[in-house]
Amino acid sequence: MKASIIIIGDELLIGQVTDTNSGFLARSMAPYGWEVSNVRTIADDPDAIREAVRDALEESRVVLTTGGLGPTKDDITKSVLCEIFGGELREDPSVTENIKNVFRKRGIKLNELTAAQAWVPTSASVIQNPVGTAPVMWFETEGPRKSVLVAMPGVPFETEHVFTNAVLPRLLSRFPSPDVIVHRTVMVSDISESALAMRLSDWESALPPHLHLAYLPKPGLIRLRLDGHGHDEEQLKAEIDRETAKLIALLGDNFLYDGDATPAEILLRTLKAAGLTFATAESCTGGNIAHLITSVAGSSESMLGGVVSYSNDVKKKLLGVKADTLETLGAVSIPVVEQMAESACRATGADVAVATSGIAGPGGGTKQKPVGTVCIAATFRGQTVSDTFHFPGNRARVIDRASTTALLLAIRLLRNTNPSITK
Amino acid sequence: MKASIIIIGDELLIGQVTDTNSGFLARSMAPYGWEVSNVRTIADDPDAIREAVRDALEESRVVLTTGGLGPTKDDITKSVLCEIFGGELREDPSVTENIKNVFRKRGIKLNELTAAQAWVPTSASVIQNPVGTAPVMWFETEGPRKSVLVAMPGVPFETEHVFTNAVLPRLLSRFPSPDVIVHRTVMVSDISESALAMRLSDWESALPPHLHLAYLPKPGLIRLRLDGHGHDEEQLKAEIDRETAKLIALLGDNFLYDGDATPAEILLRTLKAAGLTFATAESCTGGNIAHLITSVAGSSESMLGGVVSYSNDVKKKLLGVKADTLETLGAVSIPVVEQMAESACRATGADVAVATSGIAGPGGGTKQKPVGTVCIAATFRGQTVSDTFHFPGNRARVIDRASTTALLLAIRLLRNTNPSITK
Repeated sequence: MKASIIIIGDELLIGQVTDTNSGFLARSMAPYGWEVSNVRTIADDPDAIREAVRDALEESRVVLTTGGLGPTKDDITKSVLCEIFGGELREDPSVTENIKNVFRKRGIKLNELTAAQAWVPTSASVIQNPVGTAPVMWFETEGPRKSVLVAMPGVPFETEHVFTNAVLPRLLSRFPSPDVIVHRTVMVSDISESALAMRLSDWESALPPHLHLAYLPKPGLIRLRLDGHGHDEEQLKAEIDRETAKLIALLGDNFLYDGDATPAEILLRTLKAAGLTFATAESCTGGNIAHLITSVAGSSESMLGGVVSYSNDVKKKLLGVKADTLETLGAVSIPVVEQMAESACRATGADVAVATSGIAGPGGGTKQKPVGTVCIAATFRGQTVSDTFHFPGNRARVIDRASTTALLLAIRLLRNTNPSITK
Repeated sequence: MKASIIIIGDELLIGQVTDTNSGFLARSMAPYGWEVSNVRTIADDPDAIREAVRDALEESRVVLTTGGLGPTKDDITKSVLCEIFGGELREDPSVTENIKNVFRKRGIKLNELTAAQAWVPTSASVIQNPVGTAPVMWFETEGPRKSVLVAMPGVPFETEHVFTNAVLPRLLSRFPSPDVIVHRTVMVSDISESALAMRLSDWESALPPHLHLAYLPKPGLIRLRLDGHGHDEEQLKAEIDRETAKLIALLGDNFLYDGDATPAEILLRTLKAAGLTFATAESCTGGNIAHLITSVAGSSESMLGGVVSYSNDVKKKLLGVKADTLETLGAVSIPVVEQMAESACRATGADVAVATSGIAGPGGGTKQKPVGTVCIAATFRGQTVSDTFHFPGNRARVIDRASTTALLLAIRLLRNTNPSITK
């Protein structure tokens, strides 16, 4: 079953906003056998909307649109859809009621612009949006091959809420599907994409045609995704289980995790399985490692806290890094990050800690320590490992790579120190 | 001048990876008068690539593609483009040399899969990629209306490097443009989108047809972008300056910043202008505020550091929050965040600090303090302001909103305390 997505908004085409809705919608539909064949990102422009809707309805039974439903003048999706599907714009009292409720909760007064959002095409059936003022509109085409177009608001929080709670259930009952797609992801580290592809070549070539392997490199990591298409979900899953076991055996020490998880999630699961607590001491990563960890729901079970020691003074005051180490070796040095990591454990009472100190750039580089030089340490009950890395790229990329590398260092340290800790 | 973008990769259509390349390309081209009329996100599928390339070449003089150029079996873009533009795949020795260089820098050995990336269509002119192994391929169509298609690698770091340094300069000399587009953004806070639209309605309606206003709501903020199209850049800029001045006057206290900047950037500029230093004390935001600040290049001038006090124990140990305050009022309370903020200043020596403590969810909510309840404080040399907020949405959204709100609270505190600080 094919679906097409249309993302509407001038702000996306000048790159001021990054679209996350298409990814969310695709991820949500994939488990039910829906394949997104196309995402079109277009302007708030009547011609562009007309053309994209026409093409999408030709290629897919389901077309999902987001955006262009706001109360302001640049939001024209509704009137263009009304023109395409017929009927006229008319006030829907149930939408007016919903808008009033949303505004009551937010403690603000309804005004006439927002009230106009209750005007919907008579050709649409309305799905209420309990978390925003733009209603969801469900259109069906005439003729033998009935297709559905669902227009949703573009604010990601609203899109996610209305799709999960109302649109997806209705799509599933409208198009019951015999087809099934199964995805399985395995995480790999410390190997290049091409070296990995060569190692997996024989196994990959022997895969049956309904199984497909995709390489998804991320900074410091590769995700391998095995996709299977078929009719019998149980059989397909069993087949993918068997192939995944072969794959993991081929990966050897480069195998990181069976599943699609971030390094922070993998570390947290490792910590929880062993009943351990965690802390951070960050200089160049500036709080990003703590942020990645605490972004995971339930992280408070293992995460105690940390210190962002951006200035040398804070490294001394809050982490007790020795002044003479800082003076003789500089802040970006192995002894400094080792002291930081060990001190983070002492200061917070955590079992495990990581520390970073480096030059994220664009300034601050020297001949000896160019931009991208980062010292990283991980410590677990007195055993400390550390290394100096040279990451390519701009500031954001150096911070990203250093954070991932620190998390991977902690995962490997825990696994090597305590082999009973489950992968 | 119209451009189309095609983003190629199965991983994008199942939502495993979020496309950031299209936004980057659009942002880079906009100042030179290029309008991106369409972004197509398609699978690693020959038919989809053929169709997208055909449609894009029909509508635009310049088509940019990213992705599908890797060394693995799922990367088929190159062979499909060879089929469309003619010629055959042949090894380009200069690309082989470049790949060897890239591998030498990374300290890994060349293997045959990577070596195959040096095979390029004879119909393409090659642009070397100094930061990766997939070369950039520049194709030109035959016939009277010559169009250009540039195929670039999909790893964002590589895309950004090759586009900025090689592709964009070549496009600008290939298509010298008489047209110019000017964008200007103004940041607004503490007002709803519809209330703002009503306030601006008369001014917006009086704008000449070549000027256009767009509303870009972000959590806790609205960006207003004024776009102008014309031939005379100086005249257009002067016109947009005049309209922006009127707009800022209409915004009154809701005016936050003249320019497109994140709250962290605005705070850092305010701090630098006044020669002040900054620190954080984060519970529920878990390091995100420190991360947002330290993501900005040059932040080390103002940012001293901070504490992520996720557990109550760390709040007491590292920030000296009083045990009886925690016991009687709970960690999510105004006195706790005020103590945290003031203590962050004392511990680091900073002039200004913010602190957060709240329930990011999904667990941990109570009837009195449901998920989304966040106490936030900002302090500047002994003057502390604080408030309790209720943010809607999931964990990521609560962390995001709380971080933005804390930064805005610090910006407003500095402006109100010291009116000499420039906006």
